[in-house]
Amino acid sequence: MTASTKPQITAPPSDFPLKSSQGRVSKLMQDLQDEICQGLEDLDGLGKFKEDSWERPGGGGGRSRVIRDGGVFEQGGVNFSEVWGETLPPSILGQRPEAKGHGFYATGTSMVLHPRSPYVPTVHLNYRYFEAGPVWWFGGGIDLTPYYPFAEDANHFHQTLKQACDNHHPEYYPVFKRWCDEYFYLKHRQEMRGVGGIFFDYQDGQGALYRGPENQGEAAIYSQQVGIPEGRSWESLFAFVQDCGKSFLPAYRPIVERRQPTKYGDRERNFQLYRRGRYVEFNLVYDRGTIFGLQTNGRTESILMSLPPLVRWEYGYTPEPNTPEAQLYEVFLKPQDWANWQPNHQLV
Amino acid sequence: MTASTKPQITAPPSDFPLKSSQGRVSKLMQDLQDEICQGLEDLDGLGKFKEDSWERPGGGGGRSRVIRDGGVFEQGGVNFSEVWGETLPPSILGQRPEAKGHGFYATGTSMVLHPRSPYVPTVHLNYRYFEAGPVWWFGGGIDLTPYYPFAEDANHFHQTLKQACDNHHPEYYPVFKRWCDEYFYLKHRQEMRGVGGIFFDYQDGQGALYRGPENQGEAAIYSQQVGIPEGRSWESLFAFVQDCGKSFLPAYRPIVERRQPTKYGDRERNFQLYRRGRYVEFNLVYDRGTIFGLQTNGRTESILMSLPPLVRWEYGYTPEPNTPEAQLYEVFLKPQDWANWQPNHQLV
Repeated sequence: MTASTKPQITAPPSDFPLKSSQGRVSKLMQDLQDEICQGLEDLDGLGKFKEDSWERPGGGGGRSRVIRDGGVFEQGGVNFSEVWGETLPPSILGQRPEAKGHGFYATGTSMVLHPRSPYVPTVHLNYRYFEAGPVWWFGGGIDLTPYYPFAEDANHFHQTLKQACDNHHPEYYPVFKRWCDEYFYLKHRQEMRGVGGIFFDYQDGQGALYRGPENQGEAAIYSQQVGIPEGRSWESLFAFVQDCGKSFLPAYRPIVERRQPTKYGDRERNFQLYRRGRYVEFNLVYDRGTIFGLQTNGRTESILMSLPPLVRWEYGYTPEPNTPEAQLYEVFLKPQDWANWQPNHQLV
Repeated sequence: MTASTKPQITAPPSDFPLKSSQGRVSKLMQDLQDEICQGLEDLDGLGKFKEDSWERPGGGGGRSRVIRDGGVFEQGGVNFSEVWGETLPPSILGQRPEAKGHGFYATGTSMVLHPRSPYVPTVHLNYRYFEAGPVWWFGGGIDLTPYYPFAEDANHFHQTLKQACDNHHPEYYPVFKRWCDEYFYLKHRQEMRGVGGIFFDYQDGQGALYRGPENQGEAAIYSQQVGIPEGRSWESLFAFVQDCGKSFLPAYRPIVERRQPTKYGDRERNFQLYRRGRYVEFNLVYDRGTIFGLQTNGRTESILMSLPPLVRWEYGYTPEPNTPEAQLYEVFLKPQDWANWQPNHQLV
């Protein structure tokens, strides 16, 4: 990794002292960024991350790291940020009214990787932590977006995440997997963004596991059946998020190693560029992290680092029947029980 | 033009009779689509529009026309639509509370052209008309997005629009030009989308000329100075919108004819693809028409026809000093008095 081009983040003003909770999560998020970048450089074999450190005028800053034109990754970004300010934006206050009238602290790590080969899936990860007056919470998740359909890849990804979740609570995976299916959904296309993974928000150890805006979805219904789990402390959620972060490389690396050698041509590349358009549509129209960043005058280049390096739109495209492209739409962009898939399964 | 692939739009249900006002604007919008498509085919010399007619399940439908891989246009879309339903979406009801509890009728024509040559600007046009219970209004506009900076092009475009406006009201151009500068603005980039044009909304002949959400901007301040104009009838606004539509070809055609012969290489093409990313960002994050379409379950393929066929994002790009690319940012993406520009003007 090359050296920082800007000075380190300055400390917050003295009237907003960093609590030890904040310092611990901030360190976790920075360690996660370091570990992921190192693992990805090893996997890529060629590309190196370049880092920009930056400060946010309203308070805080971050380290943005980008890998480009690598052996595997056409472009990838891994960001750490730590910001504070006088008030959370309305989109969050609507979900956490107790935070109204209080300053906030937020830290997180986010990542999007756009491989060059259409056979290697795009992947996204984001873990984050908030404090605001009387409330704090963890949020985040990880999801996989393949261009070509391989059930064993989706199975491996979900199995790895399920294991990380199960080590902390038996109902985490069932609720957070459903939440992910519902969150990474393009309503205007009636498609999922990919094969999902896990997603959660507003986890403070109180209340139900699902705490999203949609009360009618499967995640909400399942979470109601589970009821309100007991004994979920700050420490237990901190440990859970830490393990989620650590599970990324084991979940993704084997998929890259398996698919990277496959040769491809214009057809596959064109399909990948077209499908990348859905990634743009999701991030700009729906994504909570993107909207939070733009609403809080975040660093635009870091927020939009998630957008792919090259994208195609095509009016009226539909895949030809009985092709891998059609199978992606028909099977992989719908919720599936990937963790329990087995080689002899017939998916519909 | 090739024949329709689907049947014509069905009539609205008998409990929502088309008023003659609706029929007249609908015909105007269809005639405008026809006239524009014919003019663009002549200008392109090679490409032909293909049409899809479609119906909207909630009521209404449209004709989407696309030109692709033409002599000038890499992709372009010209849509007509006419829709009705039980209620307007919240984003509009916030601006027009009188429409609450009423059914609505909306018709319009919209167009986005993405030329292949980086020297030929992208252009967007949209005119629309709404009725809902006791209220009706016209809205729309046109704006130009060059990739390479030519002051004489911006001047010609604005001069033509100003003439069309001045024929109807001396204050239309001054207010609607400022409104356009404010509307086609990417807050997260602190850039205008291009060199602007004219934009207006909620024009019902009552109240001030500027009726947007921003009360602090130059359009609002100028409009307050103008006061409330008298004698603006439905007929006068209908005639104004008609003339705005008719001014598109004279405003744009000479620019295409002047720039199309210029040779370009990878540098110019790469810059164009990069700047097209801003078009995507604007349309998905800010554009009222796109958001209205997606919120009212419009036809996604027609709404997102505005997105460019090929787009590039690049982390941390800034133009080199003293290049045409830098001049675009420094001069052309800021509000300028283009209608009064003269060849000896030094723009800053």
